[in-house]
Amino acid sequence: MRTDYCGLIDRRYLDHTVTLFGWAHRRRDHGGVIFIDLRDRAGLVQIVANPEDAATFASAEGIRNEFVLKVSGQVRLRPEGTRNEHLKSGEIEVVAHQLEVLNPSLTPPFMLDDDHLSEQVRLEYRYLDLRRPVMQQNFQLRYRVAMAVRRYLDDLGFIDIETPMLTKSTPEGARDYLVPSRVHHGEFYALPQSPQLFKQLLMVSGFDRYYQITKCFRDEDLRADRQPEFTQIDIETSFLSAPEIMEMMEGLARHLFQTNIQADLGTPFPRLTWAEAMHRYGSDKPDLRIPLEFTELTDAMKQVDFKVFRAAADLKDGRVAALRIPGGGSLTRKEIDDYTTFVKIYGAKGLAYIKVNDCTQPNDQGLQSPIVKFLNEATLRLILERTGAENDDLIFFGADRAKVVNDALGALRVKLGHERGFSTGGWKPLWVVDFPMFEFDDDSQRWVALHHPFTAPREGHEAFLDNDPSQALAQAYDMVLNGWEIGGGSVRIHRADIQSKVFSALNIGPEEAQAKFGFLLDALQYGAPPHGGIAFGFDRLVAMMTGAEQIRDVIAFPKTQRAQCLLTQAPSGVSEQQLRELHIKVR
Amino acid sequence: MRTDYCGLIDRRYLDHTVTLFGWAHRRRDHGGVIFIDLRDRAGLVQIVANPEDAATFASAEGIRNEFVLKVSGQVRLRPEGTRNEHLKSGEIEVVAHQLEVLNPSLTPPFMLDDDHLSEQVRLEYRYLDLRRPVMQQNFQLRYRVAMAVRRYLDDLGFIDIETPMLTKSTPEGARDYLVPSRVHHGEFYALPQSPQLFKQLLMVSGFDRYYQITKCFRDEDLRADRQPEFTQIDIETSFLSAPEIMEMMEGLARHLFQTNIQADLGTPFPRLTWAEAMHRYGSDKPDLRIPLEFTELTDAMKQVDFKVFRAAADLKDGRVAALRIPGGGSLTRKEIDDYTTFVKIYGAKGLAYIKVNDCTQPNDQGLQSPIVKFLNEATLRLILERTGAENDDLIFFGADRAKVVNDALGALRVKLGHERGFSTGGWKPLWVVDFPMFEFDDDSQRWVALHHPFTAPREGHEAFLDNDPSQALAQAYDMVLNGWEIGGGSVRIHRADIQSKVFSALNIGPEEAQAKFGFLLDALQYGAPPHGGIAFGFDRLVAMMTGAEQIRDVIAFPKTQRAQCLLTQAPSGVSEQQLRELHIKVR
Repeated sequence: MRTDYCGLIDRRYLDHTVTLFGWAHRRRDHGGVIFIDLRDRAGLVQIVANPEDAATFASAEGIRNEFVLKVSGQVRLRPEGTRNEHLKSGEIEVVAHQLEVLNPSLTPPFMLDDDHLSEQVRLEYRYLDLRRPVMQQNFQLRYRVAMAVRRYLDDLGFIDIETPMLTKSTPEGARDYLVPSRVHHGEFYALPQSPQLFKQLLMVSGFDRYYQITKCFRDEDLRADRQPEFTQIDIETSFLSAPEIMEMMEGLARHLFQTNIQADLGTPFPRLTWAEAMHRYGSDKPDLRIPLEFTELTDAMKQVDFKVFRAAADLKDGRVAALRIPGGGSLTRKEIDDYTTFVKIYGAKGLAYIKVNDCTQPNDQGLQSPIVKFLNEATLRLILERTGAENDDLIFFGADRAKVVNDALGALRVKLGHERGFSTGGWKPLWVVDFPMFEFDDDSQRWVALHHPFTAPREGHEAFLDNDPSQALAQAYDMVLNGWEIGGGSVRIHRADIQSKVFSALNIGPEEAQAKFGFLLDALQYGAPPHGGIAFGFDRLVAMMTGAEQIRDVIAFPKTQRAQCLLTQAPSGVSEQQLRELHIKVR
Repeated sequence: MRTDYCGLIDRRYLDHTVTLFGWAHRRRDHGGVIFIDLRDRAGLVQIVANPEDAATFASAEGIRNEFVLKVSGQVRLRPEGTRNEHLKSGEIEVVAHQLEVLNPSLTPPFMLDDDHLSEQVRLEYRYLDLRRPVMQQNFQLRYRVAMAVRRYLDDLGFIDIETPMLTKSTPEGARDYLVPSRVHHGEFYALPQSPQLFKQLLMVSGFDRYYQITKCFRDEDLRADRQPEFTQIDIETSFLSAPEIMEMMEGLARHLFQTNIQADLGTPFPRLTWAEAMHRYGSDKPDLRIPLEFTELTDAMKQVDFKVFRAAADLKDGRVAALRIPGGGSLTRKEIDDYTTFVKIYGAKGLAYIKVNDCTQPNDQGLQSPIVKFLNEATLRLILERTGAENDDLIFFGADRAKVVNDALGALRVKLGHERGFSTGGWKPLWVVDFPMFEFDDDSQRWVALHHPFTAPREGHEAFLDNDPSQALAQAYDMVLNGWEIGGGSVRIHRADIQSKVFSALNIGPEEAQAKFGFLLDALQYGAPPHGGIAFGFDRLVAMMTGAEQIRDVIAFPKTQRAQCLLTQAPSGVSEQQLRELHIKVR
């Protein structure tokens, strides 16, 4: 056995004989002596092979990068001037007495310390990519965070209960991954999109406090940073109100950041209603590191002649809003054009702006803009006043359906905010609350659940379920951090009659509800306790904590955006016999 | 919020006002007072509603079994003579000041304290079944064991790394569950039968010590106590030898039993070679609680005239063995017939026996048996001597192919041993080691891996891979407890050339090996460390610790033997659109 990990050997080991296992990270010949940086998961240590020790030296000569070695030797101080302050082991070296090659290595297809590797190559040779110290650290941190979650929840009396992976397909939200049944001809299991219903049933069973760190699955077209399978910290508790659950979960988040990356999330987290978040930031997950806020102009633009603003303001679901950029007067024409192109991704037709040269002159003297000529002085004055614009500022405008304005100007706020140095940095958590129960889906022309169909309405909002779904607010809460929704939860419906009403508002008739969710409706009638919970996206949380740019850097064997594993070549063809046994064929 | 759990209120709370949440377990009217046993996950407490408190009493009158209640009240001693020693809360009761029905309940389809529920009903109403105290305790224990695993392995420097659920189908051992790909027409993922290859790749990546408590999947016909998805404690480590890994894992098992059920597994675990286990017990997972052992007779029966024994002894893979049952002379004809029927399940054609009336007379005077007349006195004497039979013993015989003898007589040993009171009880762990690498599969007429194709041969046995697979022993070890294999592991192959030889011995040609396992063969060439590990069957382990009769009692939402979830009705039919999107159709 090893006596120690390489990366931990330091001055305290002086004169000790150590036995180490690891990989040859680098080999150098210098002055007739061979130096090997031996690497294990804890870091590097310098091994010295002297020509006086003929056998060891001969072994050392044959060593190439990534050979697997067993080394025994004595720890001594490095000569003055050769110490390396960047390494824990930088003051010492190990003079090898024994050096055994446990396994050679072909020349790796890339250098482990290359910072510009293509992701394609990294994923194909994932086992080598994962040797890179940054990846080792990512997974160490991921593990420590998971254990911190477990310990914290354990202290609060939560217990981890496993829910099934082979479940029933109830296509409501995203698309299910299906698994054909061999025993039941023509029938399928679905992989869970979340353990939502099972954890609710566990509350009905009286387990009181449940958690699980578990895989969930969605067969969706993968946006930039999604995975077909992802990991959720899934939590549910009985008999607590939304504020009680939020306080508890806020404590968990604070604990994780404090103990794992020594970051203070502050207390309590600010709370914004959904309406206010949309109003001020155009987003239900605002990045509060960016101090820029929207200015509402919809009301004021109902009177103007300028068609673009007027038409948007007059729409039933229209919005006109401004985003003031302090010092934005220095933006070049090219930069403004680039932002205009950017907002078009979000459906905006253009990006009106005003450069403020002299804010005391609300006209084409003081203001520079293609749209000034369409707006009268009173309107321009109002814009300057409401936005609080000062000289050398720039004001962007969004005027469209509210969704387009919010998406486009909201995204612009974040992009420009980071690019132009407005970010305060640090960690800016908040809760977004008072979400609507439903949003109207234009494609299917029906109401869909903003969270999921099991979310409880606010007390007193039950009647809206029947007569005006748009008015019903949910007992839902999202934990948002730096512009990412890291957790989403709610109080759940614990009464069968309310659950039926929600299904009905969602256009799920009694028969369909019974077929898909009959077991839930039944369970709610046999003494279901009030309950609620939350689910954290664990991959995203860890990615943020490590500073990784993408969740793939904190997932050991991720899929590409085409949902492929480049290492094992999954998915792949299977044999005709396998398909036959499952009673299916490929179209 | 609750002030406490019901089941924990005791004398220490006297005169305290407590707020409790729970379920009405029972309601009794007695002398004009209403008593409610309020139940939560910690147990029961008696609530008293007095008619003097009119509002509370009125609430209490409406309460039926399984209503969900919130109760505030004061703790007082129960009157002398009404105390319940079986309850932690049995000395006290809570006089309700406030009693709120949070949710009513329909009359449950069964009584929670009925000990004779049909499993069908339990699974259909699993959320009610899980309310039963025994089930609550099972999942509490399951959770505590899992946490104990995590803490123990954490202390040893193991880290939990998640491996994918959507993997590549490499049908070697059992049948894969397949998942059609929507993006890649005609291609499929497979759900993992185990994370075997991924954990090996993590060793190649230098993570050094890995574990995971994870779901695995096998689409096999379910024997009595198997599940399509099951949970494994999966462990892998680099740079350790088989004995080092075994010592570590033995420590884990000992710790789990000690801390969770205060049971001492002893140290060190006895070790038996596979050959010895088969020789003495006819099983590679012998139940050492049963002191009965086989007596080998094969050599001696090559000379006898008795056709049944002689033919078996002369077979290339034949065996004749005896099982002495001390005091078995009292077995009735009917009992012997029943055992004869039993061994036929295992392929035995019959069950020869000798009752020993007088062991000094090796003939039909001293021995009572249909077969005595076929055996001469010398042979009978030898049988008596080798088995050590004494008066009033009974000797059973197996004579057939060794596999049939081992299976039949091995199963008889366990069944009869338990039924006839031979079991010592307690916990009897052991390691079985020195497994053969391969066994010959008569159906496919080829060698198959006894463990899996990634198991390393013993040092010096590499040559057998080419020239005599039957001789090759593996560096494999199974942890066996009371007749169950609770863990199986091995040192893995870390050299590509040996891995290729094993594939070749298994009749997997170079092209097929490359197509299925190319990534592994590649990885082994880029500096793979020596490594090995183990996997424990977590469901079985917990079932044993709880004393549950079946693993379904420690799985929250299990499947039936027809792989169905009776609660949610999975698997189920899906829409034509779903199938179309996946490019498959049902045959």
